[in-house]
Amino acid sequence: MRIDIAISGDHVNADLVKGKTVIVVDTLRATTVIITSLVNGAKSVVPVSTVEEALSIKKRMENAVLGGERKAKKIEGFDFSNSPLEYSKGAISGKNVILTTTNGTKAISRSKDGNRVLIGALVNAKAAARKAHGFSEDIIIVNSGTDGKFTMDDFITGGAIVEEILAMGKAELTDIAKTALLIYRSHRDIRSYVKEAAHFRILEDLKLDDDIDFCLQKDIFAIVPEFDHGVIKLTEGQISLL
Amino acid sequence: MRIDIAISGDHVNADLVKGKTVIVVDTLRATTVIITSLVNGAKSVVPVSTVEEALSIKKRMENAVLGGERKAKKIEGFDFSNSPLEYSKGAISGKNVILTTTNGTKAISRSKDGNRVLIGALVNAKAAARKAHGFSEDIIIVNSGTDGKFTMDDFITGGAIVEEILAMGKAELTDIAKTALLIYRSHRDIRSYVKEAAHFRILEDLKLDDDIDFCLQKDIFAIVPEFDHGVIKLTEGQISLL
Repeated sequence: MRIDIAISGDHVNADLVKGKTVIVVDTLRATTVIITSLVNGAKSVVPVSTVEEALSIKKRMENAVLGGERKAKKIEGFDFSNSPLEYSKGAISGKNVILTTTNGTKAISRSKDGNRVLIGALVNAKAAARKAHGFSEDIIIVNSGTDGKFTMDDFITGGAIVEEILAMGKAELTDIAKTALLIYRSHRDIRSYVKEAAHFRILEDLKLDDDIDFCLQKDIFAIVPEFDHGVIKLTEGQISLL
Repeated sequence: MRIDIAISGDHVNADLVKGKTVIVVDTLRATTVIITSLVNGAKSVVPVSTVEEALSIKKRMENAVLGGERKAKKIEGFDFSNSPLEYSKGAISGKNVILTTTNGTKAISRSKDGNRVLIGALVNAKAAARKAHGFSEDIIIVNSGTDGKFTMDDFITGGAIVEEILAMGKAELTDIAKTALLIYRSHRDIRSYVKEAAHFRILEDLKLDDDIDFCLQKDIFAIVPEFDHGVIKLTEGQISLL
């Protein structure tokens, strides 16, 4: 088993993910939002690239709500922003969330040719590692990044997932997977590393400290959503907190 | 001044480098070979992509010698491999070196649209930082990587160059530049990090330990070659060791 990391959704294509288990990560905040929604009883999350696509799908989907961001802020006319704190049980239970974000939803759709596409973040790092390890095939962690660029928040999440996979058995690591692991191991206080991230400062400037606190909690959830045919759901045997 | 790092020549295009000072790095071993050649009195280094191109240029160039590698080994009919130790004063003085390697020469040619393209490695890290800093424009360190992938040897070299630039004044770092700097600062014994690199092991298996030792020496040279119109030379005021 070989573990690799892509630093941006922009670097992902069919060749890179073919035959592999993919774990897509957008720690701040898209994949944390997706996991939280499904934990809180959403029926599905539909990731889309554009606002127009989101509005169009909403018209033909039952119990649909709109979530997402542009420039880290709520989109006009949408029900929710990209804050995991808004996706509470009361707000989201039984709903289909149509989600569009700048980087995360793109990284998910670009990963579609993987053998399977799992949704990971710090909040479910151990569970994502365990699920991916169970398939016994090469793993690629796809970091969403920001506008095609490497982000520290996703990189250290990758390192955390690599460590959890290694705890379950041997694996061969690429140079970048080794480096992410080193960064994670030298920053057990994850915030001490992530606070240097450009995106962290943007969220801080928008007074989204509570979002950051939420997203940086490791292993608070044990579910691992899967993306298949355009829709993200819990797979059989996984239960929400409902 | 903003400092960024690209993890592979494959990710480089005109948009990424436009308006910037580029420092191309292939620590093991292409840029170390280029710097060493010019230190030892080569008139120029001509980086080319293919063996055919190298042979064709040799026919119409005076005092030309052929150097490079495929799969880290010498190419049939070539004068030199990709070992910096072969490019001695006696062998190379007054010659034009036509060089083709798997990753380094490609990264150089893909960087051609930068405001200027400097050649960096550990052997000239401080000099490369000083020269780049002098232009007072954004800097992108282009790591050659291996077959499109991140390599640890280039990454820590990037970190070393970032540190040397910061020693000369303030600069804004992207997330990846910050991370490379962290890796360099936590591995002052550069070999302790680089020995985990996949490419390091390949060179070790080929008994190229002396090459590795040579390439990992920081700041043994004070020159910074520049790539311009297809040719790498020392710029005015820089002298070889002749």
